[in-house]
Amino acid sequence: MFTDFDRQMMARALQLARRALYTTDPNPRVGCVLVRGGEIVGEGFHARAGEPHAERHALAAAGDKARGANAYVTLEPCSHTGRTGPCADALLEAGVSRVVAAMQDPNPQVAGQGLKRLADAGIETASGLLEAEALALNPGFISRMTRQRPFIRIKIAASVDGRTAMASGESQWITGPAAREDVQRLRARSSAVITGVGTVLADRPSYTVRPDQWVLTSYDSDWVRQPLRVILDRTLRTPPNVPVVSAPGHCLLVAGERHDGRQNALESAGAEVIHLPASGSGIDLQQLLKELNRRECNEVLVECGATLAGAFVREGLFDELVVYMAPALLGSSARPLLGLPQLATMSEKVSLRWQDVRMVGNDLRLTLVPDDLQVSS
Amino acid sequence: MFTDFDRQMMARALQLARRALYTTDPNPRVGCVLVRGGEIVGEGFHARAGEPHAERHALAAAGDKARGANAYVTLEPCSHTGRTGPCADALLEAGVSRVVAAMQDPNPQVAGQGLKRLADAGIETASGLLEAEALALNPGFISRMTRQRPFIRIKIAASVDGRTAMASGESQWITGPAAREDVQRLRARSSAVITGVGTVLADRPSYTVRPDQWVLTSYDSDWVRQPLRVILDRTLRTPPNVPVVSAPGHCLLVAGERHDGRQNALESAGAEVIHLPASGSGIDLQQLLKELNRRECNEVLVECGATLAGAFVREGLFDELVVYMAPALLGSSARPLLGLPQLATMSEKVSLRWQDVRMVGNDLRLTLVPDDLQVSS
Repeated sequence: MFTDFDRQMMARALQLARRALYTTDPNPRVGCVLVRGGEIVGEGFHARAGEPHAERHALAAAGDKARGANAYVTLEPCSHTGRTGPCADALLEAGVSRVVAAMQDPNPQVAGQGLKRLADAGIETASGLLEAEALALNPGFISRMTRQRPFIRIKIAASVDGRTAMASGESQWITGPAAREDVQRLRARSSAVITGVGTVLADRPSYTVRPDQWVLTSYDSDWVRQPLRVILDRTLRTPPNVPVVSAPGHCLLVAGERHDGRQNALESAGAEVIHLPASGSGIDLQQLLKELNRRECNEVLVECGATLAGAFVREGLFDELVVYMAPALLGSSARPLLGLPQLATMSEKVSLRWQDVRMVGNDLRLTLVPDDLQVSS
Repeated sequence: MFTDFDRQMMARALQLARRALYTTDPNPRVGCVLVRGGEIVGEGFHARAGEPHAERHALAAAGDKARGANAYVTLEPCSHTGRTGPCADALLEAGVSRVVAAMQDPNPQVAGQGLKRLADAGIETASGLLEAEALALNPGFISRMTRQRPFIRIKIAASVDGRTAMASGESQWITGPAAREDVQRLRARSSAVITGVGTVLADRPSYTVRPDQWVLTSYDSDWVRQPLRVILDRTLRTPPNVPVVSAPGHCLLVAGERHDGRQNALESAGAEVIHLPASGSGIDLQQLLKELNRRECNEVLVECGATLAGAFVREGLFDELVVYMAPALLGSSARPLLGLPQLATMSEKVSLRWQDVRMVGNDLRLTLVPDDLQVSS
């Protein structure tokens, strides 16, 4: 059904889509290539929410040459009217002769409608070319559309013996500058960063994206988007003057109890405070994810201590575990990687699958995913 | 000084030497290639202690063609009279015209004498071709010659969160069959396996080399050599009927106190019992290594629990750390990878260097070495 040339053109469209990795939030990353007579006559990607979709950019670049062209899009063209009219209609009006999508719209309620609209108008359509690559490009958007929750990535820096900090709490500089730069990229692609008040108090992190610390190759640094900073803080112990509150971007404090005085002080400092049901000594994570889904969070990055990370793992609420492993041993009195107190026998272990292993500077980055595909709803 | 052809021939000699990886103990692994007129006229490797050295095999294969040949040996030819006469003399008598060694004899008291003997007789000699590869082939023999102690390799199987067993002690099958086969290779190349009585009591291991569990490509399975099994057992709690005592090969129990009744029972079961000074709750490791050096142990494999492994690391008595990491999480109540109780601040961490990272079946094998070259004496 697809030729090698089709694959080449879709690969180009995926490459374009990747240029929007850090900027389209909460929209998906999408690329489009228009080809006529074996030559690319127009291409584009969706750069930011509110700006034209990939198809619009490609059509604008192609002009009259769009007539009779093949369109390669990494995501099925939309059939709904947003800020602009449906892209399916725009492709129709431009007179393209064939539309190939890498994947259908992940929202099961609209999947296939954009392609159907085109097919009904007599245009040749196809879907599923380089689909795995297209799925990997938008794990968060797809998770939100299909599971009504964000894609959850847990990031941990640890020693070879699985320790994240000394018993004293000292944790700075376990891993090297290249790993920290890599974390900047994880943050930049995330809609939100989640942490716990304990980490905020111990490390005073800011969780911001700092464009000066890494190489921006694909977009203007004016476009840097700060992920929402989410602090789980049952009793609102976060001091109003810490970096995570005052840094550029939006800080959301999630409380489990009412503490009006503290709340007022935090709100005066610029933070938003919401209340969610408590669960054990923390916040109900299912409720938290519902809230973040409501806020259109695609990918969320969990950057926290062993206790909170362990809670996400224990409840099966994670899609990817990224461990930056430093070539060092910290010893058994140092702090563990994950708090998972309830496991008693080997059969209860959390099984994972290796996704990627590579050196990042002088540290090793391990990426793992849950072994069993668990569809949480 | 060396040509590409020289390098090719030495690479062949190293390849031959590797065929003896599991069998030459306590002798070094050595290969030899004889070349005349651009063609290999004889080659060989030292297969087992008591059998001819590599040079003898190569000379026997070459016969008269050795006259005027270039000899490539991975280790300087010996100049002493062992079970047979010096290999340097044999090369002389055969009339070779040039001798190239990858490295000198690692024993500083005899280094260079074999080559000097040849040079004095008018033969062209050279040393240092592919030396790093030659050094890597015999880390234990070289350690014994230069540091008077074995090369110490610590092997650990752990989860991604650095846990070796459940809190209950349950530890079987953390890693998969490929990793266990790989451990068989580590054992087979070792002169001795060291463990603690705690592991013996908990897991009832045998620590034998089981040729049926891995692919033997380079030698007859009749040649399987069982490493010396060394059990650190201060109060001689090892039961006489456990596999580590009764399995094929020799079992050495290292006691720190006199317990004549237990000792008699263990000796009756076939074990050897020796006494070394106690240190803390265990055995003095420096004394242990002296004893193993005396027994001509080249490479020793430490296969034990967190406490004993931690003691070796704490005293800086390790040259390589091999971690088989299973794609699983065991949780913070599970047993830690290493007992290093005294580390208080990050500056006291044990710094390592990555040596190798690769998949072994479904597990990840991490090989690390101490970051600072510490010459223990």
